[in-house]
Order: sequence, then structure tokens, then C-alpha cells
Amino acid sequence: MKLYDLELSGNCYKVRLFASLIHTPLNIIPVNFMQGEHKQSKLMKLNPWGEIPILEDGNIVLRDGQAILVYLANKYGGEAWWPSEAHLQADVMQWLSVAANEIQHGPNKARLIKKFAAEYDHTQCVLQSNKILTLIDSHLMNNHWLAANRPTIAECAIYPYISIAHEGDVEVDKYPHIKAWMKRIEQLPGYIPMPDN
Amino acid sequence: MKLYDLELSGNCYKVRLFASLIHTPLNIIPVNFMQGEHKQSKLMKLNPWGEIPILEDGNIVLRDGQAILVYLANKYGGEAWWPSEAHLQADVMQWLSVAANEIQHGPNKARLIKKFAAEYDHTQCVLQSNKILTLIDSHLMNNHWLAANRPTIAECAIYPYISIAHEGDVEVDKYPHIKAWMKRIEQLPGYIPMPDN
Repeated sequence: MKLYDLELSGNCYKVRLFASLIHTPLNIIPVNFMQGEHKQSKLMKLNPWGEIPILEDGNIVLRDGQAILVYLANKYGGEAWWPSEAHLQADVMQWLSVAANEIQHGPNKARLIKKFAAEYDHTQCVLQSNKILTLIDSHLMNNHWLAANRPTIAECAIYPYISIAHEGDVEVDKYPHIKAWMKRIEQLPGYIPMPDN
Repeated sequence: MKLYDLELSGNCYKVRLFASLIHTPLNIIPVNFMQGEHKQSKLMKLNPWGEIPILEDGNIVLRDGQAILVYLANKYGGEAWWPSEAHLQADVMQWLSVAANEIQHGPNKARLIKKFAAEYDHTQCVLQSNKILTLIDSHLMNNHWLAANRPTIAECAIYPYISIAHEGDVEVDKYPHIKAWMKRIEQLPGYIPMPDN
């Protein structure tokens, strides 16, 4: 199973983190992002969106971090990480939408500006980040995990960009329940951090 | 089963459309959006995000259009609309992420500007809209449906804001494969349109 990967990408880290938590080996194919390899014909054929991560498992090709988490959970992770019961699965799904929307347009974009000189409005992205972090912190005041009372792929979708939010000048330290939740994730067997860079 | 609903909201329409396609009755509770009812304590207790739709099914309370579609599909819609096989479910999931991200920040925001005077950059939203519509049109050149070779909840997540994109001055007519796909959806038994307004 191949993961077309960029070490610095939080969306790729989602997949690496989950694969490690469920002890599923990945064949990591580094993509030369700075040279625009993800926009060249080989990878554009696999993913016309021109983005990574891309997962290739035999004939199956998938884009989008959240979709790849769902695939790996169904195929290798099992019920624990992606519950099949209707209301529990929907509970996790709420957080996959937060990962695709609010986290993407908050902490992810703030970091893209500071680390890769992306042209977004940093003030706006920090505001968005604080709004979503406040909601998450308040949720975690009464919950050890985001959904279903256990660690699920919701953690793998939400944690990565929060763990590197400081690189976008988004301050996570002021959210005590998020800090405690991050520590719980970091103690899970198989946990791996973002590589230092 | 109660749906806290705003008739003008494409995110609420996603839920109404799918419930109608699977012949599942909803008890529609109109929310007075203009008077900020969704930000008042009763609804903020159900959804601290301060947004609608909210679905209430006995003790179960769910926010987020995509999560509600997953819930209804698992509970009432069945395998046809939300496949259980790993790669097919992930295929649909890719489009739920597109609904939460690119559609939300493209056609949805463009319409919020034109219809509700929301303060976003319209030029930017139209650019984003054309980018995602081009990708979808190209995908539909070779596919009758978004995912899994059949109508799924991906259609219910993506179609609504495309069907009302003209209200945000986003031109859909120039995308022939999207137009043909919209017609296929509109012919599904149980299809309902957005109400005229």
C-alpha cells in the first residue's frame, strides 16, 4: 500500500499517524512538493485535485485525508476506530467535517501563511482558529475523546493541525482541555509525532 | 425525528432532499434565522456551533449536514446510499469532504454574499467555485454519478449548493456534464427541489 507523501503536510501526517496506531505498514513515496511533482501528469492522473496525500492500494486510488482514514479504518482498523452503529458513526463524521472545513481554513491556512508564504489573511485565519479551538476545548471539558467515548479516526483527523498550530502563530496553550487531550493521544500505543523540521 | 430547519439553507435542504429520496418522514421545525434563534440558548444547547441543520432523533442530536446524511443512510437509507465496502465508502467520503470544504467556501459563500450580504470576497468565492465546478464537470464526463457508480449521499451533499449557485452569480450553465448530472438527480423518485423564494 503506497502513500504519496509530504513529510511537512499535516494532511499526510493524518494518514501516517493512523496507520501507525493500527500497526499497518505503508510504503511511503515522498513527493517533491517544492518542485511541483503533485501537479505533474503522473500524480495528476492519480488525483486530478493536484493534492496529496494519495493512497494507492492495488487498483484502489484515494485522495483526501478523511476519505483515506475511512478506508483504512474499514479495511484494517476495525470497529474501534470507525464505529458502525448509526449515531456513533455520525458522531465521528461530525469531526471529519470539522477537519475538512474549520481546521483546514483555520490552523492549516495560518501555518501555510507563516511557513510557506501562502497568500491568505493571517488575522482572519487566527480568528477562525480561535473560534474552532474554543468550541473543541469546551467539548473536551466534558469528554475525554472527540466522539463515541473512545479514540477514533476523529482524533487522527483533528489532532495533526492542532499539534503544529504554533507554526502558524496560533496559540494552543491557552486551551487546557485540548492540551490534556493531546497528551492522551500522545500516550496511545503506536503514536508517532510530526517529524521535527 | 425532528429537523431544525431553515427553508433557505442549502445545508438543511441536503437533509430534506435525502429524507425525501428514502421516503423517511421528518418533523420540520422552522428556525427563525433572521431573529437569531439558532444562537439562542435552546438551540445552542443542541448545537454549540450555533448552526443549522440540527437533527434530533430521540436522545440523539446531530449537527453538520454530512454527518446527518451518514446517520440517515445508516439507519434508514441502507447500503444503496452509503456503501459499506471499504473502497466504495471512501469514494463517497471523498465527496463529503468536498461538500464540507470546497462547496462550502465556493458556491455557498458566493450565495451568502449576494443573498444575505455576508462579508466575504465575492471574486475569490467565484474563482473557488469555478475551480471546483471544473473538477466536478471533468469527473462527470466519464461518470454518471459522483461515486460508486450509483446515486449515493454524495449527490445529496454536493447537489444542493450547485442547484442554487446562480443565486451567488456562479454560472453553472457552462458545465455540460454537471447540467446532465443535475437532470439525472432531478429524475430520481422522491426528488424535491429547493422551494422557490
